[in-house]
Amino acid sequence: MDLNSLIDSIKNFEGITRKNSINHIANILKDTYNIAGNTILSFGDDASAIEIGNEKLALLAADGMWGKLMEADPRWAGYCSVLVNVNDIAAMGGRPIGMTNVISTKDKKICNEIMEGINEGVKKFGVPMVGGHLHPDTPYNALDVSITGIVNKDDVITSCDANIGDKVIIAIDIDGKLHPQFDLNWDTTTMKSDELVQAQIEVMNKIGSEKLVTAGKDISNPGTLGTLGMLLEASGVGATIELEKIPRNESIEWEQWLKLYPGAGFVLTSESNKVDRCIELLEEVNITASVTGEIIEDKKLYVTHEDQEAVLFDFQKDKITGVKEERS
Amino acid sequence: MDLNSLIDSIKNFEGITRKNSINHIANILKDTYNIAGNTILSFGDDASAIEIGNEKLALLAADGMWGKLMEADPRWAGYCSVLVNVNDIAAMGGRPIGMTNVISTKDKKICNEIMEGINEGVKKFGVPMVGGHLHPDTPYNALDVSITGIVNKDDVITSCDANIGDKVIIAIDIDGKLHPQFDLNWDTTTMKSDELVQAQIEVMNKIGSEKLVTAGKDISNPGTLGTLGMLLEASGVGATIELEKIPRNESIEWEQWLKLYPGAGFVLTSESNKVDRCIELLEEVNITASVTGEIIEDKKLYVTHEDQEAVLFDFQKDKITGVKEERS
Repeated sequence: MDLNSLIDSIKNFEGITRKNSINHIANILKDTYNIAGNTILSFGDDASAIEIGNEKLALLAADGMWGKLMEADPRWAGYCSVLVNVNDIAAMGGRPIGMTNVISTKDKKICNEIMEGINEGVKKFGVPMVGGHLHPDTPYNALDVSITGIVNKDDVITSCDANIGDKVIIAIDIDGKLHPQFDLNWDTTTMKSDELVQAQIEVMNKIGSEKLVTAGKDISNPGTLGTLGMLLEASGVGATIELEKIPRNESIEWEQWLKLYPGAGFVLTSESNKVDRCIELLEEVNITASVTGEIIEDKKLYVTHEDQEAVLFDFQKDKITGVKEERS
Repeated sequence: MDLNSLIDSIKNFEGITRKNSINHIANILKDTYNIAGNTILSFGDDASAIEIGNEKLALLAADGMWGKLMEADPRWAGYCSVLVNVNDIAAMGGRPIGMTNVISTKDKKICNEIMEGINEGVKKFGVPMVGGHLHPDTPYNALDVSITGIVNKDDVITSCDANIGDKVIIAIDIDGKLHPQFDLNWDTTTMKSDELVQAQIEVMNKIGSEKLVTAGKDISNPGTLGTLGMLLEASGVGATIELEKIPRNESIEWEQWLKLYPGAGFVLTSESNKVDRCIELLEEVNITASVTGEIIEDKKLYVTHEDQEAVLFDFQKDKITGVKEERS
């Protein structure tokens, strides 16, 4: 395997490059994200965090479904709209409490399929869809879902607190299958029990409450290394990663594997003495986790494989979102 | 004025008729809206309510902007996305704490204008936009915003608790102007101070905490009587309304006035002995409020004007959303 061509392919992966426009939006709002004085975390994290008293934070996230996914399989898009939002809250160490949706479609059949997919997701993840808005007359089909979660203020897991010397843990449920029409979706949930899938979400709440990690993020559209890149960018640090240590289902080649959106996957950073407990908790819920590298001061993401080494991101010049996390 | 032709025009108003598809969605989710056992209010209210402990409820709402509004004025659509969401929380007696958005556009200029409008709304209403998702590559322009609020469990104002014998209060800020490109938007906020506009939101929290109303709803796309109709439908009751008692800016004819989306407008029901205090609080913040009628057992909305009487909705056969509110 030629590491450089693998790295080039990931660098140009649409899942990463399309994150680039976020910075622009975050900039317009940078003076007002904390207008009420309660915003703890804003753009740049999986969910934003707002103080609600009693030492609790509300976590807010929103996700739109890729048009490509909506066209390929509206039911799956509905299901995934739940999965991605629930994972955003899990990645913060939170408990998801409810979702709302906005559906735009004039096609009743597509609307039905989306809603049935959402309902399957609600049952699988145990998080209710409690309201929303329907545009029954649009010339396009779109689905946007938002979620609210709760976390103890002391237990929140951010993307921006990775420290130099921390170990990088990559944690992925490798027991799954590719979606037949959409080969970037690594489905690990539809074939598993509700109990196990919900335990995979709850484990992040446990990891947060035991203070086992310094930072964390759920693996999403940018894939495993793209997601790690976003964490490094938000934390203002770099990392070294040994490719072979990333948990992988060996039926999938590296290039595809690293671009997948897994059903349950997290990138975490942890102090050395907490790594074992963290991995133990993840493996109890069927998530394969291993130490794959270390956080370094040099703001680059180095990937090594056998005797090869390549730089995936150099944050002195590259940006993924370009968002230095807003926090107060 | 011919009351029957006015009532016919309102009956066929798109702002009301397009609400019809919601029932279908609510039905698909009716077995799972309370899957985690914490959902207090679901589809059928301005916001859904979920218990979060400590005698508090989280309020969740979402709104998509009409395509028509996006095409006419993206900046105004951005501003209104804040206004409508904040009003959904106010209508529940809650305090809005933060919003997220999903923007779909490949046009950078439109994206900028939307975001600048959102930012103006954030400053005006004092509620932060803390995160979201951008689709930078869609062939259409869309904006969906969701909001989370907080309310004391005992103070929540629902759409479904109007009781027979209650007075109907209609409360509208009549001091405003029509939007130049969109003649169903009654703008009452852009020309007023942030302080006054925020006080118009907070007054509903005060009305909730003083337990002055039995039900309430913010006047939105279905207009004044369409919104009242939705409240009656959710509560399973009817009402009689004297047209002339509805607060109105006299520069606008009745037919247009009743279809407007006001910057600050609420339909409320209140026990007789609490009406005066409720109106007093509303008028303190420049919202004109009057008793316009009464809640009745007969599930119809009767409108009278001079010696004429007409039935706007007969809930034995008509439906607006058709959603009988889900609550637990």
